[in-house]
Amino acid sequence: MADSPNCDLKSLSPLQLFERVTEQGEKVRALKAGKAPKDEIDAAVKMLLSLKLSYKTTTGQDYQAGLPPRDLVLINNGTTKEENEDFVDPWTVQTSNAKGVDYDKLIVRFGSSKIDTDLINRIERATGKKPHHFLRRGIFFSHRDMDQILDAYENKKSFYLYTGRGPSSQAMHIGHLNTFIFTKWLQEVFDVPLVIQLTDDEKYLWKDLTTEKAYEYAKENAKDIIACGFDVNKTFIFSDLDYLGASTGFYKNIVKVQKHVTFNQVKGIFGFTDSDCIGKISFPAIQAAPSFSSSFPQIFNGKENIQCLIPCGIDQDPYFRMTRDVAPRIGLPKPALLHSVFFPALQGAQTKMSSSDPNSSIFLTDTPKQIKTKVNKHAFSGGRDTIEEHRKYGGNCDVDVSFMYLTFFLEDDDRLEQLKQAYTSGELLTGELKKVLIETLQPLVAAHQERRKQVTDEMVKQFMTPRKLAFEF
Amino acid sequence: MADSPNCDLKSLSPLQLFERVTEQGEKVRALKAGKAPKDEIDAAVKMLLSLKLSYKTTTGQDYQAGLPPRDLVLINNGTTKEENEDFVDPWTVQTSNAKGVDYDKLIVRFGSSKIDTDLINRIERATGKKPHHFLRRGIFFSHRDMDQILDAYENKKSFYLYTGRGPSSQAMHIGHLNTFIFTKWLQEVFDVPLVIQLTDDEKYLWKDLTTEKAYEYAKENAKDIIACGFDVNKTFIFSDLDYLGASTGFYKNIVKVQKHVTFNQVKGIFGFTDSDCIGKISFPAIQAAPSFSSSFPQIFNGKENIQCLIPCGIDQDPYFRMTRDVAPRIGLPKPALLHSVFFPALQGAQTKMSSSDPNSSIFLTDTPKQIKTKVNKHAFSGGRDTIEEHRKYGGNCDVDVSFMYLTFFLEDDDRLEQLKQAYTSGELLTGELKKVLIETLQPLVAAHQERRKQVTDEMVKQFMTPRKLAFEF
Repeated sequence: MADSPNCDLKSLSPLQLFERVTEQGEKVRALKAGKAPKDEIDAAVKMLLSLKLSYKTTTGQDYQAGLPPRDLVLINNGTTKEENEDFVDPWTVQTSNAKGVDYDKLIVRFGSSKIDTDLINRIERATGKKPHHFLRRGIFFSHRDMDQILDAYENKKSFYLYTGRGPSSQAMHIGHLNTFIFTKWLQEVFDVPLVIQLTDDEKYLWKDLTTEKAYEYAKENAKDIIACGFDVNKTFIFSDLDYLGASTGFYKNIVKVQKHVTFNQVKGIFGFTDSDCIGKISFPAIQAAPSFSSSFPQIFNGKENIQCLIPCGIDQDPYFRMTRDVAPRIGLPKPALLHSVFFPALQGAQTKMSSSDPNSSIFLTDTPKQIKTKVNKHAFSGGRDTIEEHRKYGGNCDVDVSFMYLTFFLEDDDRLEQLKQAYTSGELLTGELKKVLIETLQPLVAAHQERRKQVTDEMVKQFMTPRKLAFEF
Repeated sequence: MADSPNCDLKSLSPLQLFERVTEQGEKVRALKAGKAPKDEIDAAVKMLLSLKLSYKTTTGQDYQAGLPPRDLVLINNGTTKEENEDFVDPWTVQTSNAKGVDYDKLIVRFGSSKIDTDLINRIERATGKKPHHFLRRGIFFSHRDMDQILDAYENKKSFYLYTGRGPSSQAMHIGHLNTFIFTKWLQEVFDVPLVIQLTDDEKYLWKDLTTEKAYEYAKENAKDIIACGFDVNKTFIFSDLDYLGASTGFYKNIVKVQKHVTFNQVKGIFGFTDSDCIGKISFPAIQAAPSFSSSFPQIFNGKENIQCLIPCGIDQDPYFRMTRDVAPRIGLPKPALLHSVFFPALQGAQTKMSSSDPNSSIFLTDTPKQIKTKVNKHAFSGGRDTIEEHRKYGGNCDVDVSFMYLTFFLEDDDRLEQLKQAYTSGELLTGELKKVLIETLQPLVAAHQERRKQVTDEMVKQFMTPRKLAFEF
């Protein structure tokens, strides 16, 4: 057994492996302390080294006593170490690759499934609608149990959509819109209820904010979300600080999740430490609970078995892996998921667009001039250094941020393909490509601003009032 | 400095000392790794040993790397170790002394203040009422900031009372009544609002119970509490599972407390480990939040600065030490406290009466016959082995459980004194003393049962409905 510890270790989680290494380390110490026979100690040490190797192979990290594995995405893209590692958790996205994170490897690492042509075709057949360009272009690229949602839908069983936003500031950027744009499309083609969580409590816990300020941001962000055009009869937007004290079901689900997740687990998944406040440590349960229909008795008539589909950025998956792990243990259905890629920063796809870095972001409040300046000044170009070289060798769409943004915002497939060919061949210059992006973004942002102006406080209140929606359950 | 590290260490908390030892250990390792000069390493090691000694002196425990101090009551009653240690936390009370826990030492250890004759006289002057026998007899023996409450009261500033119960089963025992009996007296003499928390969420988290069952126990326990005679116009009883989803203020205070307490702290105070669920880890904030009047906007008209007075068993103090530590950091007043001794088990004062051990408890549902049998069979006696010896040497009231119970339930001071003298002199036999107790308890329990029968589900609902009380704020 000491010779081949790996045979039964493949099925173990990083945490289980960690515990095996720890146990074996204690065994070795005990044998040494008890002055056991040399061959017995040697065998135990060999086993220990072998377990440590398995741990390293599985997690990509060296075993460190007392430090359980973090459930991070550390994917080695090539043969060299460190420089080529992708790092993804709910707070940080970092890669050294200008093309961005390697999403195929992320799927393998997270254990999710690729959204392939078959699934896209099935969505088209089920809904009778042309798939959204976010699906056609791989912007939503990964899923969990979407086939179950379609099975149920084809059998006339309804489901509901759940997505959210952490209201860390008044200013949302164009990248924040994508999940909402796609969620709106899903809601329309499937005709299902939607709940949108604004985690103002999370922002209060993580940032230097009062609860009042966090709640104010939540209401401001709700305006941007409503401006995407959601139907008030089918959509419930809620702030945690508000809804937790106004729901007979939400807290019960939170405490159920909290009973079934240990500190060791959240330490492993989110990297919390002993110095973190107990609010952060228990927060994941609050993002988990809206995955269960019994958190919204007013919408689902108290039913607790309505399935949930969560469209979200892949960085939010750790919360829902945890949720899916807990669900069967509290007798509730696992939520299904659709994962999107990150929206790249202007400076390049090595990291995602972030409100806290104004130069990396185009805000929904930016003027046409600001948009023009930011794109021209900051958008990382895949073009060549000189016009001559560019004409000769062509630009690289894989790393060009302007082109990436156009895949998000330019709906016309033919036009996008033309631009790609023209840029790759060198026919289209960087400045010209940027001009196309600027002319695409300016009216889009202006239209959003116009719609947002129409959103009154009264409308926000309507969306945020717990109530029955236009669906029977 | 290395010679006398203790001079500035006396003011440090166990956790701060723990951190100093950890730091110094790292320093020593770094010096050794960096091959520093021998005298420098020696000085650092000397300092480390000295810090470890301070840690041990302060906490009574050896320093263990990675294991912060538990804030337990480990008081050495004598010269020998271990056997004479009192152990008190919210879940366990254990002492080897038949007289019970040494409460004077507990006051020193917890840093609270003794309820002395001056304070009792001041309460009498302020209220114009004879102090309750629980005060006169030292059953409520310790306090925090009771003088502040009286200062405010004498200046016509109101306060409110907060107490609670963990509804772990339908059966409450006679010991559970004491806090409520005393709280009722406080409410009457001061004429202030009272909130009573039923921590059904805690019981769900700690026990093998569903949320439904825990809530059912909460409502059953509410009946026993109401049967003590509380005024529905002045008293709000709430279940956490229920009220958390029905209050605009409660969750906001919970999350504020949760932001200001780290896992290290709850580990130190409550002994939680990494294997505990995140629900347990964050629960202390839920017991803390009712100490702030903004958790009850319906009662206090949204005011957040109404002071709170908490009558409770001394074992609950860790929750409120934590609360008092957090309060100024979230801009809210510290709650004041009145602490009671434990209600001894029938078998003796080494441990407290516990519902989970039926032989240690007289339940509020017991028949006169059951009461008689339990007292005669299980109540630990301070009498002598034979009648002859008893007559000659007399009994020992300090360890006699029947006599202890009479200090709780026999209101007549003169009668109690007579019994004490007669028992101590040997005139009164154990069987006779037990008979007095039985005859005291039987009508008391029967009267409680009679009143409890009158408590309807409708009354429970009234008490548990969030509403304004008969006070203006």
